Amino acid sequence: MKLAGVFPYLVSPVDRDGGVMEEPLRRLVSHLVDAGVHGLTPLGSTGEFAYLGWAQKKRIVEIVVSETRRRVPVVAGVASTSTHDAAAQTGALVEAGADAILAILEAYFPLGEDGVEAYFRAIASAAKGRTVVLYTNPQFQRSDLSLAVIERLSHVQNIGYIKDASTNTGRLLSIIERTRGRMEVFSASAHIPACVMMIGGVGWMAGPACIVPRQSVRLYDAAKAGDWRAAMELQRPLWRVNEIFAKFSLAACIKTALNLQGFAVGEPIPPQAPLGDAARAEIEAVLRGVGALGEGAVGAVPAARR
Amino acid sequence: MKLAGVFPYLVSPVDRDGGVMEEPLRRLVSHLVDAGVHGLTPLGSTGEFAYLGWAQKKRIVEIVVSETRRRVPVVAGVASTSTHDAAAQTGALVEAGADAILAILEAYFPLGEDGVEAYFRAIASAAKGRTVVLYTNPQFQRSDLSLAVIERLSHVQNIGYIKDASTNTGRLLSIIERTRGRMEVFSASAHIPACVMMIGGVGWMAGPACIVPRQSVRLYDAAKAGDWRAAMELQRPLWRVNEIFAKFSLAACIKTALNLQGFAVGEPIPPQAPLGDAARAEIEAVLRGVGALGEGAVGAVPAARR
Amino acid sequence: MKLAGVFPYLVSPVDRDGGVMEEPLRRLVSHLVDAGVHGLTPLGSTGEFAYLGWAQKKRIVEIVVSETRRRVPVVAGVASTSTHDAAAQTGALVEAGADAILAILEAYFPLGEDGVEAYFRAIASAAKGRTVVLYTNPQFQRSDLSLAVIERLSHVQNIGYIKDASTNTGRLLSIIERTRGRMEVFSASAHIPACVMMIGGVGWMAGPACIVPRQSVRLYDAAKAGDWRAAMELQRPLWRVNEIFAKFSLAACIKTALNLQGFAVGEPIPPQAPLGDAARAEIEAVLRGVGALGEGAVGAVPAARR
Amino acid sequence: MKLAGVFPYLVSPVDRDGGVMEEPLRRLVSHLVDAGVHGLTPLGSTGEFAYLGWAQKKRIVEIVVSETRRRVPVVAGVASTSTHDAAAQTGALVEAGADAILAILEAYFPLGEDGVEAYFRAIASAAKGRTVVLYTNPQFQRSDLSLAVIERLSHVQNIGYIKDASTNTGRLLSIIERTRGRMEVFSASAHIPACVMMIGGVGWMAGPACIVPRQSVRLYDAAKAGDWRAAMELQRPLWRVNEIFAKFSLAACIKTALNLQGFAVGEPIPPQAPLGDAARAEIEAVLRGVGALGEGAVGAVPAARR
Repeated sequence: MKLAGVFPYLVSPVDRDGGVMEEPLRRLVSHLVDAGVHGLTPLGSTGEFAYLGWAQKKRIVEIVVSETRRRVPVVAGVASTSTHDAAAQTGALVEAGADAILAILEAYFPLGEDGVEAYFRAIASAAKGRTVVLYTNPQFQRSDLSLAVIERLSHVQNIGYIKDASTNTGRLLSIIERTRGRMEVFSASAHIPACVMMIGGVGWMAGPACIVPRQSVRLYDAAKAGDWRAAMELQRPLWRVNEIFAKFSLAACIKTALNLQGFAVGEPIPPQAPLGDAARAEIEAVLRGVGALGEGAVGAVPAARR
Repeated sequence: MKLAGVFPYLVSPVDRDGGVMEEPLRRLVSHLVDAGVHGLTPLGSTGEFAYLGWAQKKRIVEIVVSETRRRVPVVAGVASTSTHDAAAQTGALVEAGADAILAILEAYFPLGEDGVEAYFRAIASAAKGRTVVLYTNPQFQRSDLSLAVIERLSHVQNIGYIKDASTNTGRLLSIIERTRGRMEVFSASAHIPACVMMIGGVGWMAGPACIVPRQSVRLYDAAKAGDWRAAMELQRPLWRVNEIFAKFSLAACIKTALNLQGFAVGEPIPPQAPLGDAARAEIEAVLRGVGALGEGAVGAVPAARR
Repeated sequence: MKLAGVFPYLVSPVDRDGGVMEEPLRRLVSHLVDAGVHGLTPLGSTGEFAYLGWAQKKRIVEIVVSETRRRVPVVAGVASTSTHDAAAQTGALVEAGADAILAILEAYFPLGEDGVEAYFRAIASAAKGRTVVLYTNPQFQRSDLSLAVIERLSHVQNIGYIKDASTNTGRLLSIIERTRGRMEVFSASAHIPACVMMIGGVGWMAGPACIVPRQSVRLYDAAKAGDWRAAMELQRPLWRVNEIFAKFSLAACIKTALNLQGFAVGEPIPPQAPLGDAARAEIEAVLRGVGALGEGAVGAVPAARR
Repeated sequence: MKLAGVFPYLVSPVDRDGGVMEEPLRRLVSHLVDAGVHGLTPLGSTGEFAYLGWAQKKRIVEIVVSETRRRVPVVAGVASTSTHDAAAQTGALVEAGADAILAILEAYFPLGEDGVEAYFRAIASAAKGRTVVLYTNPQFQRSDLSLAVIERLSHVQNIGYIKDASTNTGRLLSIIERTRGRMEVFSASAHIPACVMMIGGVGWMAGPACIVPRQSVRLYDAAKAGDWRAAMELQRPLWRVNEIFAKFSLAACIKTALNLQGFAVGEPIPPQAPLGDAARAEIEAVLRGVGALGEGAVGAVPAARR
C-alpha cells in the first residue's frame, strides 16, 4: 500500500473512568477526512499510546476504521516493550481493519541493535503483509533506531516507511540516501515539513495536522508540485503551530486546541494535567493567526454552544 | 506494617509464549524465605515489570503470596503511566494478598510536580490502608520524585517508605533528614547497603539479594547491630555482585545467575537478549567469589542435572 | 559589514611543541580564497579553539588576516568562560585585523539567561563596531542561547548574525521568524545547507567547506538562484562529507582530509588522537566520491611528494 | 607525600578587572590553617579554575604557598584541554612551591580512554616526583575517568590519590577495591564524608570546608577514630551545608558564605551572577544552624565593619 501526504496523529478521547469517548472521535475522524487529509494515524504519541490499556487501544482503532470507511488508509500504532506483546497487538489491529501499522518500540533496559531489529521484524511478520511504518522518537524513547538497523530493516518486504520524530533533519537525508527505492520517509512535527519534502520525503505524520488539516494539505500540495516559494509562504505561519506543540505537552496541546475548535475530546489522561489559562490563550492566538479558529474556520460547533 | 531488612526483587520467570512459570517461581520464593530474607518484592525493575502485561503481573503476585504463606511480607510493584490504571492495579494486588505496595511511576511526556504527587496519592488511597513504598529510579524513568514532593508525600498516612534507586547516596541522607519520624528509607543495589544503614536506612530492596540471600542477611545483621567493621568486611566482597548487576542488564544478570545456581527461571523477556558467554563466565566467577555457587552454596539442584 | 555565502572553519595547524605552523595555514587560506569561498572563520570548533592558548589564537588570526589580504572577510572566533577575558580577546582580534567576531560562550557552572546575554553584549561592545556573529553549539557547550535571549540580542546594533550548530533545523526557522530584519542565520555542518538556504538562511560556516570549497560554492550559487532541484542534486553527494565530519572527531577529520589533499596541517592537538587507518580510508573514499581527491581535484601538491 | 584529612577548596578572590585580591586570600588561608585543616587546594571547581587565566592561576598559587608557610600541604589544581599546556602548568606550579598537583582534564571533543590516560600520565611526568591527585567530575566535565583507566593510572608511581566529585558513592568503593595499596580516595562535597571514610577513604577535598573548617575537622577526627555514632551526629547537621552548596552555584555559594563570615573575597567571576537575597538568606540560616556564623563563630571581622 502506497502512503503519502498528511497523516494527522489522532488524539484519544478518554473520559475520567477510562472509557473511550466514541462520538467526539468519530466527529474528528469525519472532519479530517472531509478536510482532505491523506490518512489517519491513531495511537501515536499525540494519541497518548503510552497512557492507554489494550482494550482502549483496540476500541479506538475500531472506531477510527469504522468511521473512516476506507476513504483514506488508517495507520494504527503498535507500541510495546515486549516482542511477544507487540506481535499480538499487530495481529489484532490488522484484524480490526488497520491498513498499516506504525511500529513503536518502548524500552526500559538498554537494548542492543540486534534486539531492536528483532522487535521490528516480529511486527512485520505479524502484520500479514500489511505495510509497516517504523517510528523513531529519541526524545521520549530510551532506545533508538541506528542508521545501520534502519538500512537492514529497509530490506524487509513490508517495511516501507519510516517516521522520524527527532529534531535532526540531517538524519532524514542520511536515511533517504541509504534506503532509496526501499523505504520512504515521513516528517514529524519536529521537522519543517517543507524541508523534508524538498530532500525527498513523502509527507508528514504529526499531531498539529489535527488542528490545521486544510492548511497542511495546501502546504503538501505546493511542496508536491515543487513550488517551494509557495510552500515556504504557507510553511512560515504554520511553523508557529509546531512551536506551541513542542512547547506544551503534545497531547494536552492538541486536545486543548481541538476543544477550542469545538471538538469535545476531553482532557489529557491523568496524571497529565490540563493546560493552564496562559497556555490556552497562547494556543488560541496561534490558531487564530493561521485561520484555524473563528468564523467558518473549522465548521464545527463551538464547545460552548454544544 | 513495619518493613525492615533484606527484600530481594524477585525475577519474573516467563516462557516464550508469555506464560508465567509457576514452579521455578515457587522454588525461588521458598528458597529465599528459608534463607532468612525479611520480605519479598515481586514486580520491581529486576522483575521486569516494564515487560509484563497485567494478567502476568497478577498471576505472579498470586503465586508469590501463596508460596510465602505470610512468613514474610510481600511488597508488590505497581507501575503505570496512568493514575487510573495504577489505582486499579493497586486495588487488585491488595485483593490478591499483597501486604504492601511498591509504587512506581512511569512517564512518557514530562510531568510536573503536582502530577507526580497526585499519582502517588492515588495509589495510597487505593491501597486500602496497606503500606506504600515510594520507588524512584531516575536512571530508567523519565520523571523523578523531588525532595519537596517526597516531603509532602511523607505526610500521607500509609506512605511509610521510600526506595531510591539513584546512585546518589547523599540524596538518601537529604530524604532521611527531611522525613524523620514519617518515612523510612530502603537502599537499592546502586547504593552501598552498609553506608545506607549507617546514615539511618532500614534495609535494602535489590535484585542481587535473590542470588546472595544468606550473605545479605548476615550483612544486615552486622549493620543492625552497629558493628560497622564487620559490616564492611562482609560488604566489600558483596559489592562485586552489585557491580556486575549494574554492568549487565539487570534482569538478564539475575536470571543468568539464578540459572547457574540451579533455578530454571528462564531467559529475560524478548527483545531483551540472554547474556553471552563472557558475561555468563564473569557472573559465575563473582558468584564463586562470594560463596554463592558450588558445593552446598545454595542447596539447589544445578540446572544441568534437572 | 554584510556576510553571506560559504565560510570554511579553518583548522589550526600546530606542531608538537605548540608552535603555529605558518606555511600550511597560509597555503590553506590562499587555496580557499582562490576556490571562491566568501569568507574565512579561524578559531571555530574545527579550529580547535578549545585547545589553544591566547598566544596561539592571536598568531593564527594574524596569519589569516595577512594572507587573506582583505579579499574576503575574516570572522575570528572569541571563546571564553569569562566576560572580561572575552572582551579583551575581542579587542585584540579586532586590532589584529579581524573583520567580524564569532562569539562563543563556554560555560562550566550553569549560567542563567541574564549571564548569557551579558556575555554576548560585552563582546559586542568590545568589537568597536565590527559585526558580531553569535555561535551556539548545544552539543559541546554547557549553556545555550534560548530563543528569548537570541531575540533580545538581535536588537544590539552590531550583532547581525547567528550560526547555530545544533542538529535542530526547525530551531533555525524559529530564529528567522523572530529576528527578521535584524539578524541573519548561517547554517552549520549539522544542518543540510540547501534546506537552511530555503528557509531563509544566508550561507554556512562549517568545517567541511575546508575540503570541498568549490563544490560548496556551486551549491551556494544554485541555492542563491532559487534552483532547488540543482541545489539538491549537488547537496546529496556532499552530505556524505558532513556525515563523516559528524562521525569522526571534527578537527581530526578535517586535518586528516586536508593531509590527504596535500595540505600538511599536522595532527589534532593532543590528547586528541590522530584518526586510525579505517577512518582515514573512509574519509579518502568520501573525498574521492565528491571529486575532492585525485587528479586535479584540489590543485595541491600531494603530501607524499612534498 | 602522604595526604589525608580535610582539604578545603579555596575560592579565588578576583576583582572586576581580573586582579587577584591578595589580602583576603591570605586571611582565608591563615584562618583555615589555624582552624586545623590538613591541607589546602587552590584552583579546584570552587576556585573557579575554569574562569581564570594562567597569570591569575599562578599568582593565586604563589600567594597560597607563601601564606601557608609549609604548615600544611598545598595541592594546586592543573586543568586544561591540552596535554602540552597541562604539563607546562604542572611544571610551573611545582616551581611555584605546590606540594602536590590536583590533575583535572577538560574536554571539548569526546576523548577515548587512551587520550584520557595519556593526559594524566603527562601531568605525572611533569610533576617532578610530586604527588598527583586525579580529579573526576562527570557533572561538569565532558570526559570521565573509567574504572579501567583509574586502575591503570594507579600503577603510576606518583599518582597516589583520586578525588571523585560524582554523586555516586558506590563508584568510590569500586575504585578502592581495585586500587588498594596504590591509590587512596578523597571524598567530594557530593558524597557524605562519613560514609566515604567508613568504606576506606582518607578525607575530603571540598568547597564547604572553607566555611565550616572546625566542624569538618571534628567530623574527620571522629571518623578517623572509628566512632561512627559520633561521626554521624556531626555529619547530619553539616550535610545541610553540602546541600546548599549543590543547590546554588558552587563558587557563588562559598563566596557568599565567606562574605557573610567577614572574608571580603568578592563576587563570582562574571558572567556568573552574585546570588540573590533569597539564596543569601538561606545560606545565612544554614551557617547559623551549624554555628558557622555569629558571635565568635569564625573570629573574623564582619564585612560590614571593615
